[in-house]
Amino acid sequence: MIKHLKSAADLDAATATLILDTAGEMAALAGREVKKLPTLRGRTVVNLFYEDSTRTRISFEAAAKRLSADVINFSAKGSSVSKGESLKDTALTLQAMGADAVVIRHPASGAPHRLASWVDGSVINAGDGTHEHPTQALLDAYTMRSRLGKIEGLKVAIVGDVLHSRVARSNVLLLTTLGAHVTVVGPPTLIPLDVAAALAPGIKVTYDLDSVLADSDVVMMLRVQTERMQDSYFPSAREYSRRYGLDAPRMRKLPEHAIVMHPGPMNRGMEIAPEVADSSRSTIVEQVANGVSARMAVLYLLLGGKA
Amino acid sequence: MIKHLKSAADLDAATATLILDTAGEMAALAGREVKKLPTLRGRTVVNLFYEDSTRTRISFEAAAKRLSADVINFSAKGSSVSKGESLKDTALTLQAMGADAVVIRHPASGAPHRLASWVDGSVINAGDGTHEHPTQALLDAYTMRSRLGKIEGLKVAIVGDVLHSRVARSNVLLLTTLGAHVTVVGPPTLIPLDVAAALAPGIKVTYDLDSVLADSDVVMMLRVQTERMQDSYFPSAREYSRRYGLDAPRMRKLPEHAIVMHPGPMNRGMEIAPEVADSSRSTIVEQVANGVSARMAVLYLLLGGKA
Amino acid sequence: MIKHLKSAADLDAATATLILDTAGEMAALAGREVKKLPTLRGRTVVNLFYEDSTRTRISFEAAAKRLSADVINFSAKGSSVSKGESLKDTALTLQAMGADAVVIRHPASGAPHRLASWVDGSVINAGDGTHEHPTQALLDAYTMRSRLGKIEGLKVAIVGDVLHSRVARSNVLLLTTLGAHVTVVGPPTLIPLDVAAALAPGIKVTYDLDSVLADSDVVMMLRVQTERMQDSYFPSAREYSRRYGLDAPRMRKLPEHAIVMHPGPMNRGMEIAPEVADSSRSTIVEQVANGVSARMAVLYLLLGGKA
Repeated sequence: MIKHLKSAADLDAATATLILDTAGEMAALAGREVKKLPTLRGRTVVNLFYEDSTRTRISFEAAAKRLSADVINFSAKGSSVSKGESLKDTALTLQAMGADAVVIRHPASGAPHRLASWVDGSVINAGDGTHEHPTQALLDAYTMRSRLGKIEGLKVAIVGDVLHSRVARSNVLLLTTLGAHVTVVGPPTLIPLDVAAALAPGIKVTYDLDSVLADSDVVMMLRVQTERMQDSYFPSAREYSRRYGLDAPRMRKLPEHAIVMHPGPMNRGMEIAPEVADSSRSTIVEQVANGVSARMAVLYLLLGGKA
Repeated sequence: MIKHLKSAADLDAATATLILDTAGEMAALAGREVKKLPTLRGRTVVNLFYEDSTRTRISFEAAAKRLSADVINFSAKGSSVSKGESLKDTALTLQAMGADAVVIRHPASGAPHRLASWVDGSVINAGDGTHEHPTQALLDAYTMRSRLGKIEGLKVAIVGDVLHSRVARSNVLLLTTLGAHVTVVGPPTLIPLDVAAALAPGIKVTYDLDSVLADSDVVMMLRVQTERMQDSYFPSAREYSRRYGLDAPRMRKLPEHAIVMHPGPMNRGMEIAPEVADSSRSTIVEQVANGVSARMAVLYLLLGGKA
Repeated sequence: MIKHLKSAADLDAATATLILDTAGEMAALAGREVKKLPTLRGRTVVNLFYEDSTRTRISFEAAAKRLSADVINFSAKGSSVSKGESLKDTALTLQAMGADAVVIRHPASGAPHRLASWVDGSVINAGDGTHEHPTQALLDAYTMRSRLGKIEGLKVAIVGDVLHSRVARSNVLLLTTLGAHVTVVGPPTLIPLDVAAALAPGIKVTYDLDSVLADSDVVMMLRVQTERMQDSYFPSAREYSRRYGLDAPRMRKLPEHAIVMHPGPMNRGMEIAPEVADSSRSTIVEQVANGVSARMAVLYLLLGGKA
């Protein structure tokens, strides 16, 4: 098993599949009301968050607690970080305190890689800049497999601000590893062709959402970061929603079995219409539940070997 | 047993009495140094706080931990809520994460009712707008019964800004259910007669604190929300304190056995004089201790049936 | 055993030695992968922090959790404190909630002493104003003993803004009790002679760092609080660093066995050069690890007797 999960590229197909299978076992145990496992009793998981993300933080917190780990939340706001402490010194502190795993969210791409060079424990990337968010990709893959029975051969459209999305990047990497066919969709200014091509071999790019719907098994809508709307290369909100928002008429173009995904939190009425978000095709709520199972699996496999 | 505790009106006399009896058992166990019960092992209690309230949050946190539940604190400040996430989406997230109970404090009256329509777990209202705060009423009733041996027939004066007080509203409802005689006391602008009459049948209203003291078993002082002092219908601080503050001379008018209550935090010197707050009649510290017992009882009874 | 740890002056040599020995046992257990002890199961430790200090808070939190205590974090920011609640009322609240220990950090010197007069549980000072930080002194003493085999007779130089440093004050008191010879070093404006003399009998003072290096077993660098740099009695940053910063040339003047300490977080390049901080003489990372062991020992000994 790998020691760290810094990038979806750390995962080969066998390792990714093992994590998804383990997540399935975790979900099955929860379904049988076995909510607390003794596996990580006495281990300490630190949530080191340099950006606010309550959803991700409590998902990891719930996962670690179900495995009986002790969880320490470290929000970098108002901490010694604001007194100028470097990431390295913070890392050495957590290391010295005996952290068995550090779950890190950081605005700088690559921060988890640097952290991993300074600590003995496992580092799990919970989102670094515009770079990666690998556990999101794992829970998304788990959700696809649960709904559609497989990942290999699936046609997946990822729609939105692909350039700045760590969710998109991790999904492209993992889905390609697992044999899905990925098309990225968005405004031309947000998906330069060279960038898209560099993401993974074989990836397709289109600027026309309507052209891919009829042939997609999965449509994954990215969250619009509205704070980017002022950027000159970003369409207006109205224009964006009209061209790249998933509304009911567009949803009707999808094959019968196709699903609609979103990492949350949604901008209802912007990238996704309320009736789509609440439809039976939508896996948005399942994704959250699967997030806890997937993170349990990651913590279990990365830390379990040291028991 | 009820599933949610959204309002003191959810409680009939039998249910309320069962909660008070159970709180008594919890307190007795704590008194025998049995501080940790395995009852809710593996259950997750989420504290979903849209307003700061450290006291209430840590009271619920202590209660849940003594029952061996896992506790996840979710402060809406700086969370995805600030990215525009709706209460519904937050609810679905907590639901998907497997929250067995959500303790919610929210500035909007009625938020717990909406939340209960979206989640499978139990919803416990920890204060919604100017509406209700039912566990406060339970701990207050428990305190009265502990000190005075009964609730039925007690004469209780609730003093202050009754109109805007969720503590007052929940107490009026619960105490009436349990057979106490309630009089609300405060400035006329803060207790319109029609509002008071609508609170509960049989409630009395007076604007003259001195007229009720000699015949009260309980005087419950409400916290003055000093930020309301600017409102035109609010007396000046000096005037308020002179007419509705409980000082030592007023305390001497009470019957020998009468008690003085306050939900905390107090404005010493405003609605309550320091010598009253620290007197042997005062139950203010007991109320805090009883709050943990009462919240343990609520969590135990609402969640216990699913074990 | 003492009940509270408010000041390093609370500790006589025998008690301090017992704490250091116990910390050694805690560290040995952790080294044998016994990371969770049942000792404080069912006990509640409250971290009551009126100042941000993530490092100290999570060190206490990790220590308490390894002893199986329940931990409740109470950050005074945005709490009822901001509604004007007094420390006394907060104390009575924590007391009523059944806190077995309150770990307090407060900007006012003496706050832990006042707190101890209001609660039944143990009070542990985690830093009060410019006054004391006794667990820092304990972990520092533990580190010296681990590295150098003893404390009695050691020559220890404490360098920096001694006047405003609670770390310095607690270290001077504890080290003197344990028989070390302490010299305080810093700018004349920051170490008035009468203040230094009042710290402890036998303490030496010098304004010349270079004069003490060759004869020191331990050099303890204090953190420069850069917000004080504007004060007229503080040298410029450049001047301070030149005269009182520990750089590689100065480090070479130390005896072979001497160690360099720092309570963290460091200002690399200000009071300590990076090559010194990262050298094998530096105990900075060990100090953090030892902090958890020392705080485990304090919690164990202060609370253990009540089991």
